[in-house]
Amino acid sequence: MIGDGRLCYGGDWNPEQWPAEVWAEDIDLMRRAQVNLVTVGVFAWSRLEPTPGRYTFDWLDRVLDLSHDGGIRVALATPTASPPPWFSLAHPDALPVTADGVRLHHGSRDTYCAAAPAYREAARRIAGALADRYAHHPALALWHVHNEYGTSCHCEHTARAFRRWLAHRHGTLDALNDAWTTSFWSQHYTDWAQITTPRATQYLANPGQLLDFRRFWSDTLLAAYTEQRDLLRAANPAVPVTTNHVLGDWVPVDHARWAAEVDLVAIDHYPDAVDGGAEEQTALAADLARGWARHGGTPGWLLMESAPNQIHTAGRMHTKEPGRMLRHSLAHVARGSRGAMFFQWRAPVGGAERFHSALVPHAGPDSRVFREAVELGGLLADLAEVDGPVETSIALARDAGSDWALRHPGMPSPRLDHDTEVAAAHRALWRAGYACDVVVPGDRLDGHRLLVLPALYLVRDATAGWVRDHVAAGGHLLVTYLSGVADEHARVRLGGYPGALRDLLGVRVEEFHPLAADDRLPLTGGGTARLWSETVRLAGARAVSTYVGGVLDGLPAVTRHDRGASTIWYVSTRPDDDTHGRLLTQAARVAGVTPTCPGAPPGVEAVRRRRDRASWLFLLNHTDRPQQVPAAGVDLRTGAPVERVRLDPGGVAVLRETAG
Amino acid sequence: MIGDGRLCYGGDWNPEQWPAEVWAEDIDLMRRAQVNLVTVGVFAWSRLEPTPGRYTFDWLDRVLDLSHDGGIRVALATPTASPPPWFSLAHPDALPVTADGVRLHHGSRDTYCAAAPAYREAARRIAGALADRYAHHPALALWHVHNEYGTSCHCEHTARAFRRWLAHRHGTLDALNDAWTTSFWSQHYTDWAQITTPRATQYLANPGQLLDFRRFWSDTLLAAYTEQRDLLRAANPAVPVTTNHVLGDWVPVDHARWAAEVDLVAIDHYPDAVDGGAEEQTALAADLARGWARHGGTPGWLLMESAPNQIHTAGRMHTKEPGRMLRHSLAHVARGSRGAMFFQWRAPVGGAERFHSALVPHAGPDSRVFREAVELGGLLADLAEVDGPVETSIALARDAGSDWALRHPGMPSPRLDHDTEVAAAHRALWRAGYACDVVVPGDRLDGHRLLVLPALYLVRDATAGWVRDHVAAGGHLLVTYLSGVADEHARVRLGGYPGALRDLLGVRVEEFHPLAADDRLPLTGGGTARLWSETVRLAGARAVSTYVGGVLDGLPAVTRHDRGASTIWYVSTRPDDDTHGRLLTQAARVAGVTPTCPGAPPGVEAVRRRRDRASWLFLLNHTDRPQQVPAAGVDLRTGAPVERVRLDPGGVAVLRETAG
Amino acid sequence: MIGDGRLCYGGDWNPEQWPAEVWAEDIDLMRRAQVNLVTVGVFAWSRLEPTPGRYTFDWLDRVLDLSHDGGIRVALATPTASPPPWFSLAHPDALPVTADGVRLHHGSRDTYCAAAPAYREAARRIAGALADRYAHHPALALWHVHNEYGTSCHCEHTARAFRRWLAHRHGTLDALNDAWTTSFWSQHYTDWAQITTPRATQYLANPGQLLDFRRFWSDTLLAAYTEQRDLLRAANPAVPVTTNHVLGDWVPVDHARWAAEVDLVAIDHYPDAVDGGAEEQTALAADLARGWARHGGTPGWLLMESAPNQIHTAGRMHTKEPGRMLRHSLAHVARGSRGAMFFQWRAPVGGAERFHSALVPHAGPDSRVFREAVELGGLLADLAEVDGPVETSIALARDAGSDWALRHPGMPSPRLDHDTEVAAAHRALWRAGYACDVVVPGDRLDGHRLLVLPALYLVRDATAGWVRDHVAAGGHLLVTYLSGVADEHARVRLGGYPGALRDLLGVRVEEFHPLAADDRLPLTGGGTARLWSETVRLAGARAVSTYVGGVLDGLPAVTRHDRGASTIWYVSTRPDDDTHGRLLTQAARVAGVTPTCPGAPPGVEAVRRRRDRASWLFLLNHTDRPQQVPAAGVDLRTGAPVERVRLDPGGVAVLRETAG
Repeated sequence: MIGDGRLCYGGDWNPEQWPAEVWAEDIDLMRRAQVNLVTVGVFAWSRLEPTPGRYTFDWLDRVLDLSHDGGIRVALATPTASPPPWFSLAHPDALPVTADGVRLHHGSRDTYCAAAPAYREAARRIAGALADRYAHHPALALWHVHNEYGTSCHCEHTARAFRRWLAHRHGTLDALNDAWTTSFWSQHYTDWAQITTPRATQYLANPGQLLDFRRFWSDTLLAAYTEQRDLLRAANPAVPVTTNHVLGDWVPVDHARWAAEVDLVAIDHYPDAVDGGAEEQTALAADLARGWARHGGTPGWLLMESAPNQIHTAGRMHTKEPGRMLRHSLAHVARGSRGAMFFQWRAPVGGAERFHSALVPHAGPDSRVFREAVELGGLLADLAEVDGPVETSIALARDAGSDWALRHPGMPSPRLDHDTEVAAAHRALWRAGYACDVVVPGDRLDGHRLLVLPALYLVRDATAGWVRDHVAAGGHLLVTYLSGVADEHARVRLGGYPGALRDLLGVRVEEFHPLAADDRLPLTGGGTARLWSETVRLAGARAVSTYVGGVLDGLPAVTRHDRGASTIWYVSTRPDDDTHGRLLTQAARVAGVTPTCPGAPPGVEAVRRRRDRASWLFLLNHTDRPQQVPAAGVDLRTGAPVERVRLDPGGVAVLRETAG
Repeated sequence: MIGDGRLCYGGDWNPEQWPAEVWAEDIDLMRRAQVNLVTVGVFAWSRLEPTPGRYTFDWLDRVLDLSHDGGIRVALATPTASPPPWFSLAHPDALPVTADGVRLHHGSRDTYCAAAPAYREAARRIAGALADRYAHHPALALWHVHNEYGTSCHCEHTARAFRRWLAHRHGTLDALNDAWTTSFWSQHYTDWAQITTPRATQYLANPGQLLDFRRFWSDTLLAAYTEQRDLLRAANPAVPVTTNHVLGDWVPVDHARWAAEVDLVAIDHYPDAVDGGAEEQTALAADLARGWARHGGTPGWLLMESAPNQIHTAGRMHTKEPGRMLRHSLAHVARGSRGAMFFQWRAPVGGAERFHSALVPHAGPDSRVFREAVELGGLLADLAEVDGPVETSIALARDAGSDWALRHPGMPSPRLDHDTEVAAAHRALWRAGYACDVVVPGDRLDGHRLLVLPALYLVRDATAGWVRDHVAAGGHLLVTYLSGVADEHARVRLGGYPGALRDLLGVRVEEFHPLAADDRLPLTGGGTARLWSETVRLAGARAVSTYVGGVLDGLPAVTRHDRGASTIWYVSTRPDDDTHGRLLTQAARVAGVTPTCPGAPPGVEAVRRRRDRASWLFLLNHTDRPQQVPAAGVDLRTGAPVERVRLDPGGVAVLRETAG
Repeated sequence: MIGDGRLCYGGDWNPEQWPAEVWAEDIDLMRRAQVNLVTVGVFAWSRLEPTPGRYTFDWLDRVLDLSHDGGIRVALATPTASPPPWFSLAHPDALPVTADGVRLHHGSRDTYCAAAPAYREAARRIAGALADRYAHHPALALWHVHNEYGTSCHCEHTARAFRRWLAHRHGTLDALNDAWTTSFWSQHYTDWAQITTPRATQYLANPGQLLDFRRFWSDTLLAAYTEQRDLLRAANPAVPVTTNHVLGDWVPVDHARWAAEVDLVAIDHYPDAVDGGAEEQTALAADLARGWARHGGTPGWLLMESAPNQIHTAGRMHTKEPGRMLRHSLAHVARGSRGAMFFQWRAPVGGAERFHSALVPHAGPDSRVFREAVELGGLLADLAEVDGPVETSIALARDAGSDWALRHPGMPSPRLDHDTEVAAAHRALWRAGYACDVVVPGDRLDGHRLLVLPALYLVRDATAGWVRDHVAAGGHLLVTYLSGVADEHARVRLGGYPGALRDLLGVRVEEFHPLAADDRLPLTGGGTARLWSETVRLAGARAVSTYVGGVLDGLPAVTRHDRGASTIWYVSTRPDDDTHGRLLTQAARVAGVTPTCPGAPPGVEAVRRRRDRASWLFLLNHTDRPQQVPAAGVDLRTGAPVERVRLDPGGVAVLRETAG
């Protein structure tokens, strides 16, 4: 689509921060590293439109021409993530406002309210001007709208937009009052004008209001995106359009809802774990992106930003060990990314991110990082033939609404959220050697033998039906605690938890027993329960494991319910990681699913891509010891056939396997 | 008074959150559980007055009629703790403002300023309308004004009211300047208009201003209460009026000052400790409530809210163990509560407190919690005959002002406050098997042999006289550190601490030595000192225990001063709990006071009520083992005489004893 | 200068807080303690000008007369650190505003904006009135302008002043845009009016803006000072003028820039460490003050405030052990302080600092503290002859800008700052028995054999030249990590760290490796690295010690570069304290520098003052054991010659040594 058959490789290039003599050196170095795509103009608004309506495109003309001459294609950004100072001075009402009513000022980035008419108008104007000028430039490979939509606002523009959105969603105030349970604490609305955004208030806020505000705001940002996209598409329908999303609990975006609106799902990924956790986070991020593309029917996805070097962890930067950048990049490509892009090409001398890592660091090209960048360019060039979906028979559900709702105040435990549970299940599968597809509830399940629902808190009736259909078709199911408790408005389903899935699971949960942070409750069969436990009453299922000691002594912790060809598991707690892995492995075995590469040693990640009768096996050795893997094929780096793969410490291999 | 001879049993019932078909089921279930009192309408303002001045009382008519038909009496609330959205939209100036100047918005509860004229007028209007309609309804047993007065404000309405209150309290600016020591840091006021509430300021605030602001605000809330009470009383003087208070350091209320203004002291109690601490907190809360009723000359008190199940601790919910709800309820009744009421009857599907526990939980009546509710109803019915005050000869002083002042910034240690010291002394007595009356300084002391003053920081001259009178009358006294240091304006008394009590104690404290959080300083005779120590100079007293090591090595830690028949103890530190218990036991023995039930094993709580020649003994086994107690009488549950009580793990017994 | 040959001794005296009868007792007690200087009027504005323009000087007249009659001289303060309530009511626009936009209110101290015209005008008016009345009073020894300049503001007055300052500093917007790297994140300014103070913003702020705002604000406070000073000087040029500065990372003042504007550098010092740390902090504070006086060409410095007793640590007060006040005072005098002054004379009964310690505590003069105050007065009287600079050959550089810049967000580690590194180096020297001069980069280095640059992050070209000149002249140099990384605008110098000093050090640092808080990385030769490590490439230097294990295994940690007569050390990490001390000792030895008193045992601090051929040795025993020191001379307390000094636990001695 965007490519020329090659995997994309490059990063954010900011020539506007450098004198022109550096540009030529940049192009030379890019060619040395086999860079083929650069993102340009992300934060260049104030250099493109220094005063309202006056454009200074000449430097960008030269940048695009220079790129084209150098054989490097451009992802051209609209610069709307950072309005220029003149905009803020002229439109103080378009500056964002916190829930406390503090108006944020210029001086960083993203100092706008996406619901402010003046901002939206200015954003359309600069996007339109770029479209007019560059839509047919031969270097242009991709439009990159905005950057990491991720801010929120509580100003009056936002409140008005929220009320409009609510009227559209709920139709009547009666429906809204019912959805939000406003009969609690005298919050019954009798006029739309009474509704505000969830500003700072005296005590706990209304969960329905909080949930709808997040949905509304994701839709508001999406509208800000689509109106730019439409302008760009109109100028040249042949050029694909996307926007890059970051992941994280602070990001007010339901990524899945955006997937159908982009021509390519793009994510930025910055793991914040130092040890093995960074690799596990990387695998999950890539699986999420692939899942969104699948959900949206989008023809692929791309890692748009990642860090050439440091990992930010607990506020500090941890320098990536040699080879780790390459392995992270390959982990994304193995899971379908159409390349590996970085923030950023060259480290700046100033600005807030002066110590963000770069392919060309402060020390210059005579550096470990740049040498590894050259190596990565070579490897990516060798992988052009790899194609097709990741091979797996396991689906893992992730749902933005469930994550938002579990983070609401007033939950039985403040330590629980959906995304952490998704990550725990994903990590357990990853360590056990299983690949999985991350799906959005309601997505088509075709080859998936096992469906895993980790703390899927919000289950609307249609979702419950989707789960029943999977089981009715012979699929297997594993559900963890806090799933199915609430409906789409975060209202609790009555009669015993987990209301929406109770019958299917063959259990009835009478009470929750949240655990303290350091509590460990033993389970029969080995292992321990953490964070959560429940009074589970059997209603068709049988106990696989029970709690040992305490008030739940002898009561079921994990249950199994066999229905026809299907086996349905319920896990009423968060088991420790090993136990979690054993449970998922057991469920996979019962479902007839095997690991990707059964003989791969621990710490060696294996991912298989398959297209028709061809398949490719990615092997990443995350350990600091040499490893051997019983896999055969043609090594794409050497072109040589191998019968058994020997991996250096931290080494990688990609095999073209004999057609399956 | 409110009862019909029976103990009250029931909780908050919110029919406005449910369809009418649930109401009938509710009445049926209440009858099964022997519920006889329900609190109705607490947060129903927006359902009673959906637009200004238009009332929709029909549903409430039906609710009261239904209750009456079911034999269940009603505590009818005025709904003023949560104004409807229309009120906030119409009167933004009546929304509360934080010390930082942030105006809080609608969307939770309690979003009003109690000093705002518009709020007060609207509150009187709805209270008056309820009085007009329901003051003679046969179901009405009690008026329940508002709910948990507990918010504060820093708006201009509040500042104006503060100035009026100060002018009334101090008379002249000279007096105020003197009381607040405004000569420090150039704060001398020359015009009342210069005074504000203690808004956010540059550095440490003025302690006198902070203290008066808390007193003023408590009085402001009280005025908001009394004007509603007067309307309700005028409509039918036969119906008692109260308001329910919550406890906690964030509650801006001097509960003792309110006691004379209610017809029944009502508290809500939610312990936040998980282990034995919850039982100790429960005993203290009940003793506080009984003490306020005694102070106010109020004919009794009632536990108006408690949790049927979960304890909130460190943000998480801890599920109460089986039997614990019953024991907590009985601990209150043993200390004089006229029943046991709960928040709430039925768990809601939505709203901020959707996971607050209920007598009818989400799982419905087929649940442990509801079964325990039925058991509790039966037990309470058996206890109707119990009457009379709690038997004790120890008085423990608690004073809101001392607690407020010790929490001011700029104190020698941030880890100290009066309420924690009161709780420490109360806990030590509880563990040693002694009951006590909590008194307000100045209260009549008749049968009290031992008076305990824990960190009674503010001691006005009259209070010092009250203490001297107790000693002069042969009473015994135990005083702990930080008592008597300051006068009623929180000004330090000079010449050596503890200024107001120095002569009585026979010591002169020259310097404070606050300890670090983890410091432990050994004491002679065993035990350790924590948090605090002092340079104590003997001036009549003798040392009972001295500090070991450090700069205070060999100096007195605990002193004893014998004056006539009285013994006066001074404890210049916070001893560890065991040592604290030994000291109080020693003081009690010297005073001739014995425990309530001398042979009761540790973990079995014993409380005796006595009326004339009859007495009843409550025994609560808080351990998980069976226990035997050497007590004889008639078991009120079985009607059978017992010579020795055998308690199941977690079990309880109430004996009618042979008249004393 | 201010003295009469004697060392100053006294403190803040606040007669306005007390009835007149106490004043006479104060004078008597001062005479008993040999107090000879008191600071008067610091926070007396509201008592001197109770309404605008009406002065009530009569009480101050009496206070100065009384002092004069008692033989006690006065440091008369202008009271501008705390405007009266009437000022705040009349000029709400002159109240300070936080970065969040919260306007702070009256009720503490320092509630003004130093950029507000109304404040500046009122401050000049009261200062002028005091100058008119008291400039020739015989008791007047010193003008004490304001108190602890230390507040900041983000109001519109401040923003306007910031823009004016920036225009003056940068000349053109182009220069500002370049200095601040506004090409990053679209912050390019096209009109001065677009610039604000660094108000709360969406994400990371611009480092150039943050740095210039701190410089601007220090200059703004300085202008507020100098305009008062000029008024006072004009009234009587013979009376010296100063202002007292506090130390700490929250103080928005570049102390070095103020030194040339005062007639005497004055500091307030309150150590916040409990154990030996308090002594190390005291030594550093005194060395800083002496360094600023040296930098400004000021004829001396004075400890203007210190605590007679408690040390504030972690929010709590720690009572100073007996003798510690005296040792702290002597540590300052040993380093050149012209006396020892205290906050405060008499402890107040109220106000925010009611528990701040005093020479006359709440307990009155019959107290340990006052007895020690009398002892100190006697000792100071014995030391009148001591004179001359501290003897040392080591210079340690401290630079406010480096500290400010290292605290910016977005640095590789949040745990690093310049002042902590200065303190670590100073502590290591102190423990090893070496005195040092703290210098400002660019200061004259005459007798300094060894120059130490600890994390000197900002190095302008001139500073790099100053370092090169020191080496060229045969001086020795020790540089620690994060030095020389950035230019004066906090822009990173490219090509490898530490850009400005790379060639001199003979190393090229390719990458930073910040460590986690609890990481410990072994070094060859013993010891461990903490907080930070680097990929050091040798380019002329040789490795003295290398990292052991991890990705830096075998790479240089500490290097040595011999150039001509000079030895240049680079320390690429923070070594543990012992290793730090060994490294500095080694560098000192190579430079030919010896400790002050080679035979002094650990824990005994030795400082030598020397004037021409005379010298005095201060010996402070900070241990709790008796100590012997091989030093000879005349003991100034006894007048007796000693051959070997015996120090009691916590004891001190000052010797007049045989002329050198």
